[in-house]
Amino acid sequence: MQDNKPLVVGLAGFGTVGGGLCRLLRENADLVRRRCGRDIRIKTILVRNANKIREVETPAGAALVEDAAKIYADPEIDVVCELMGGIKPAKDLIDKALEHGKDIVSANKALLAEDGLGLFRKARKLGRALRYEASVAGAIPIVEILRESMSGNRITSLIGILNGTSNYILWEMTAGGLDFATALQQAHDLGYAEADPSLDIDGIDTAHKLTILIRLAFGIDYPFSSLYVRGIRDVSALDIRFAGEFGYNIKLIGQVRDVGEEGAPRLEAGVFPALAPKPSLMANVRGAVNAVRVDGNASGPLFFNGAGAGALPTAGSVLSDLIAIARYDRACNTGYDDSGLKKADIVPRAEWNATYYARVMVDDAPGVLRDISGCMAAHGVSVAQMIQKTETGQHAVPLVFMTHETTDLAMENALKMAAKKGLLREPAMCMRVL
Amino acid sequence: MQDNKPLVVGLAGFGTVGGGLCRLLRENADLVRRRCGRDIRIKTILVRNANKIREVETPAGAALVEDAAKIYADPEIDVVCELMGGIKPAKDLIDKALEHGKDIVSANKALLAEDGLGLFRKARKLGRALRYEASVAGAIPIVEILRESMSGNRITSLIGILNGTSNYILWEMTAGGLDFATALQQAHDLGYAEADPSLDIDGIDTAHKLTILIRLAFGIDYPFSSLYVRGIRDVSALDIRFAGEFGYNIKLIGQVRDVGEEGAPRLEAGVFPALAPKPSLMANVRGAVNAVRVDGNASGPLFFNGAGAGALPTAGSVLSDLIAIARYDRACNTGYDDSGLKKADIVPRAEWNATYYARVMVDDAPGVLRDISGCMAAHGVSVAQMIQKTETGQHAVPLVFMTHETTDLAMENALKMAAKKGLLREPAMCMRVL
Repeated sequence: MQDNKPLVVGLAGFGTVGGGLCRLLRENADLVRRRCGRDIRIKTILVRNANKIREVETPAGAALVEDAAKIYADPEIDVVCELMGGIKPAKDLIDKALEHGKDIVSANKALLAEDGLGLFRKARKLGRALRYEASVAGAIPIVEILRESMSGNRITSLIGILNGTSNYILWEMTAGGLDFATALQQAHDLGYAEADPSLDIDGIDTAHKLTILIRLAFGIDYPFSSLYVRGIRDVSALDIRFAGEFGYNIKLIGQVRDVGEEGAPRLEAGVFPALAPKPSLMANVRGAVNAVRVDGNASGPLFFNGAGAGALPTAGSVLSDLIAIARYDRACNTGYDDSGLKKADIVPRAEWNATYYARVMVDDAPGVLRDISGCMAAHGVSVAQMIQKTETGQHAVPLVFMTHETTDLAMENALKMAAKKGLLREPAMCMRVL
Repeated sequence: MQDNKPLVVGLAGFGTVGGGLCRLLRENADLVRRRCGRDIRIKTILVRNANKIREVETPAGAALVEDAAKIYADPEIDVVCELMGGIKPAKDLIDKALEHGKDIVSANKALLAEDGLGLFRKARKLGRALRYEASVAGAIPIVEILRESMSGNRITSLIGILNGTSNYILWEMTAGGLDFATALQQAHDLGYAEADPSLDIDGIDTAHKLTILIRLAFGIDYPFSSLYVRGIRDVSALDIRFAGEFGYNIKLIGQVRDVGEEGAPRLEAGVFPALAPKPSLMANVRGAVNAVRVDGNASGPLFFNGAGAGALPTAGSVLSDLIAIARYDRACNTGYDDSGLKKADIVPRAEWNATYYARVMVDDAPGVLRDISGCMAAHGVSVAQMIQKTETGQHAVPLVFMTHETTDLAMENALKMAAKKGLLREPAMCMRVL
């Protein structure tokens, strides 16, 4: 039923995400073994030029090849992991790999949005997995959430901030008061925006992702070409300001709403800049970050926020797909080999390290502050901020302070010392600062 | 390999969540069929008193029984869904059901926290699924996220607001200025708090959930009895106020941090009130809501927010577990029978219904406001708010307004009319309000 031989991967594409995946497989190797009961090994990496000097280390034992057949036709390879991007050669590779009995992991949003339906049909016919967690919203596991976790829900609405570059630009315009051109230049300088930023700022990238999410949420084919798409080029500093005066932040969103009857979804979907009420979680998504809000008829609103791009966040999603394929044992109930979990190595509370808030009630008398400070100092607790207020007519007055980093034990002992000296009129209140 | 016969469920417990599950199975029946290729049918419901009058409708064809053996020993039943709560009888039922070859779905956090390890070992030995999405954080799919979606990550830290009642009380103290006793009373009156609220406000419920999450995140046994637990009874209005002055909100959290070396986790874990910086997502979790922040070495920080309790949110999580068991086909790539997805029924943009923001640049001249308003009125667009500012020396001045609900088409036509009449000095800017 299952064996422990490694899952053998053919990797297509050795750029940012491919390099991140190799690094994660190295750094998290033990964990991967505990989570799926076997190793995951990259055997072959398909690249355009095998002789190019690379910054990323090639995984031990892996061969760089320029011929796609060395990936899709190698009988030893179990999974083809497609991180090339683009439509044409990626589609050919996946088609051929499916035909050769490989499972597929892909991060290719453009391909999955525009040609996904055919690929899914083919994968299903051949009984292969085609997984694509990394294609939408980077580290946010929205594909799994819609496919598995929310499977009991009728989805009524989904709103996503799915393009980090656009969100960065709009956030800089909002919080920093920049105009569009300056914010875009800044995104370039920080490496968030490509030389040609049109996929990002014209909404195409968001539209690819929204197409994939609509399919997952409703099990319906919403053709990418039918999606209304409008980018953020015409959002001016003036609009940001006026929206702010009305109490809103401007966000580039992909949105779909089911406005139909139960059982007969009618979908209103598009990509466009929109105004989100300032107190909402959506309005407060800052910088090059992604977020998705999904409303289900059971769950109510759920909100997810996290890194939408980057080598490791995206590679982590790719790796979760590989691990899912490597686990052929459905009774993996804890996500680990749970036949004999190790006991935790527990840090005793005395060693807990944090900054703390403490409130003591003291006499409103000279010398009290000095005495309390003395107790702190005696246990190496350094005070960062303090509030002392005299409230007239009160017998005991509060003295409140925030510490620099210290241990739970030091705090406890310092406060015990103050109590012992008779400085406290009530038991002290102490809480960790996150 | 698979057939289409219904998944037959024996339900133990017919309270709030059990009733919610029956309702969802009825309302979302078509969807469930599309998502797992078969029906999910409740055959038998174990209750304490079969003759009690119930508000909830018994599912068609289901029998109420008082004898547990009618659930665990019925050869026709595939899955036992345990929603009784409590330790003793629930554990016996699950033990016996596993021995009779049933898969298990449970929402029992106390049982899973205190005796989970033995149950998982048994389930694994017998090759059965033991799923428990609903046991932690209601509708937030944190079990699946840790077990599957973040499986490529080494988890470095997890912080959860896992008890809605406590969060409601602290939020009312923060936003409403109430003292603890008044906020607790209010939680009672709204049905958030039990007659004996100690499980909630003393942190026990949070501790059960944290124990389960630690096991999922680290694959390590952190005994529930070793967890440091402190509740919110001693959080005073004074502390809420001072924390506020320092820029923090007070939250009851469950927290675990890995402070060990790579590959050798050392865990610092506990339940306690703590100060969250006001701009953080965690500080802004309002009312009886749950949230979890997880940091992974690949993903970086991920934040999840949603309903932590309630009939339908919890039942939705139970149902997702049942669907996972009902799907024995791993190549379910879209989460639906994707051999032939239907085309979407697309709402044309003209019919999109929303409130809108519009900015027009107009001459600073008498009658312009009247003319613009006339264009709006002519297309049935009703203006809710307006900003008009004269900026000296400017030729064209902005006129900005927010509408009541209207259609995209009406907005477009109204603005076209204004342009045609020569009222606009620049193209109009129009955006949807979320």
